[in-house]
Amino acid sequence: MSVSKESLFLNDLYASWLTRSEGMDLASQRDMFEEWHLPTIEPIDVTYEEVTANGVPATWAKPLGAAEDRVIVFTHGGGFVTGSRFSHRKLAAHLAKLAGVHALIVDYRLAPEHKHPAQLEDCMAVHKWLRTQGYKAEYTATVGDSAGANLAISTAFELASLELPTPAAVVTLSPWLDMEIKGLTVESNDAVDVLAKRAVLEMMREMFLSEPADATDPRANPLLNDFTDFPPVYVSVGGYETLLDDSRRLAELIEKVSGEVVLDVVDEQQHVFHFNAGRAPEADHALSRIARWLRPKLGLV
Amino acid sequence: MSVSKESLFLNDLYASWLTRSEGMDLASQRDMFEEWHLPTIEPIDVTYEEVTANGVPATWAKPLGAAEDRVIVFTHGGGFVTGSRFSHRKLAAHLAKLAGVHALIVDYRLAPEHKHPAQLEDCMAVHKWLRTQGYKAEYTATVGDSAGANLAISTAFELASLELPTPAAVVTLSPWLDMEIKGLTVESNDAVDVLAKRAVLEMMREMFLSEPADATDPRANPLLNDFTDFPPVYVSVGGYETLLDDSRRLAELIEKVSGEVVLDVVDEQQHVFHFNAGRAPEADHALSRIARWLRPKLGLV
Repeated sequence: MSVSKESLFLNDLYASWLTRSEGMDLASQRDMFEEWHLPTIEPIDVTYEEVTANGVPATWAKPLGAAEDRVIVFTHGGGFVTGSRFSHRKLAAHLAKLAGVHALIVDYRLAPEHKHPAQLEDCMAVHKWLRTQGYKAEYTATVGDSAGANLAISTAFELASLELPTPAAVVTLSPWLDMEIKGLTVESNDAVDVLAKRAVLEMMREMFLSEPADATDPRANPLLNDFTDFPPVYVSVGGYETLLDDSRRLAELIEKVSGEVVLDVVDEQQHVFHFNAGRAPEADHALSRIARWLRPKLGLV
Repeated sequence: MSVSKESLFLNDLYASWLTRSEGMDLASQRDMFEEWHLPTIEPIDVTYEEVTANGVPATWAKPLGAAEDRVIVFTHGGGFVTGSRFSHRKLAAHLAKLAGVHALIVDYRLAPEHKHPAQLEDCMAVHKWLRTQGYKAEYTATVGDSAGANLAISTAFELASLELPTPAAVVTLSPWLDMEIKGLTVESNDAVDVLAKRAVLEMMREMFLSEPADATDPRANPLLNDFTDFPPVYVSVGGYETLLDDSRRLAELIEKVSGEVVLDVVDEQQHVFHFNAGRAPEADHALSRIARWLRPKLGLV
């Protein structure tokens, strides 16, 4: 097993970030994380449209010929502190195109200016907006990467707790779930994960959680929930990730209650290696597998 | 006369840059200038495609239903030092859509790693590539903003000097032409131009020009050329710009040799106010006027 030369673009990007971010202010860190779009090659035959969904800025990615009533609600990663609908536009568009659906990329409010649960509230506002626009929950999937995968799961739980209809499926790319940061791979993969070091995770967690910080709040830490009757989940993760154990524990929790889950670990890949979409085969193949799994969940053949 | 509230988005962005850039390293300055895309709202019904044109990275913006054989070659601004096909993608797409043509946004090499005339060489490589792809010069316009407007003109001169076919038209948005920085508005508009201060212009010029720096090199300073037989030129500029005199002098030079030029000054607007496309009426109206002028030049009714 070896990785493609093309996939190393992301490794090099992450390595430059670690070097550069030493002592950098938050505004510049956010600008730097916007470079996340660079590995992703523009997918052809996709159009875009900006909207305000119940007060929350969002961008539609509309692949030509896609099913217009099937929606991926995409929540971007970046530790709840960085990232945007712009950094993740092309990534979401690739998955939408492969699945033959539209994607709505959500610009939820960021920490630390807006602490938990502001992010979850914005996601809820978007789902309520989709209902008013005629989109059905059963034709909707929540999808996110890293911290955005946390929101993809938390939003489904929040909808269920309010007895609102839940999405037909949940897709998590390199999810960051455990706010206690207890995964064994945080240490065991520290030498091979180029980006998601413990210090980075702890810094972002502090910005995210309200004072007094409660890392065991189940609305911020999806691993502390009961996954009985939860929608089917696809977990796609890189083998070199410090956060690999978050994915494994998620899959175990769902299996324990006989839920439907796919755990898809791609050897030697980095955190959100899916950013290499259009560039590296590992990303394209992983997204294709997700799309194949997702289509029937959304009632597509 | 007063400016729209919406157009002030760009003023606020520029003001934040001036405050933040104090002592900032080049990599972070480039990240910050990538925020240039923020004022521009995603135009609907446009698709994108990345290509390598004779070794030069570029992105097609393809509005649905546009004339596929008519091309805007768009060279982005940023003082030859910052900016990219990403920061200017939406701006170029807006103009392409209004004109009903395709735009090719050129990622030429940046200074100071690559000094003048590397930028011009990359533009020439792209035009030669377009010929090999079957695109005709007579159906092509060169378009650019700020330093990219300098390249839009310089490329037309370079093509002519090599007796290659020249574009049918040249469009300059807030052009930066005078490497001697002698325009009187550099001082007289200093208090109202939020971004393009003399110190910024001088810093970028030093990075751009090779040693020994020659600000009177006509390939770097389009104002020192003879515009006899030059293609028709549209000049769109903000009334509050330090670089306003570059636009005025360009128009005078062309008029002096009885060439065709439109000088379109929009009162109280900032440097490349066109970035507010989709957001502010001043930008949308200015781009509409350009498109109306451009279409017949490219043989469209």
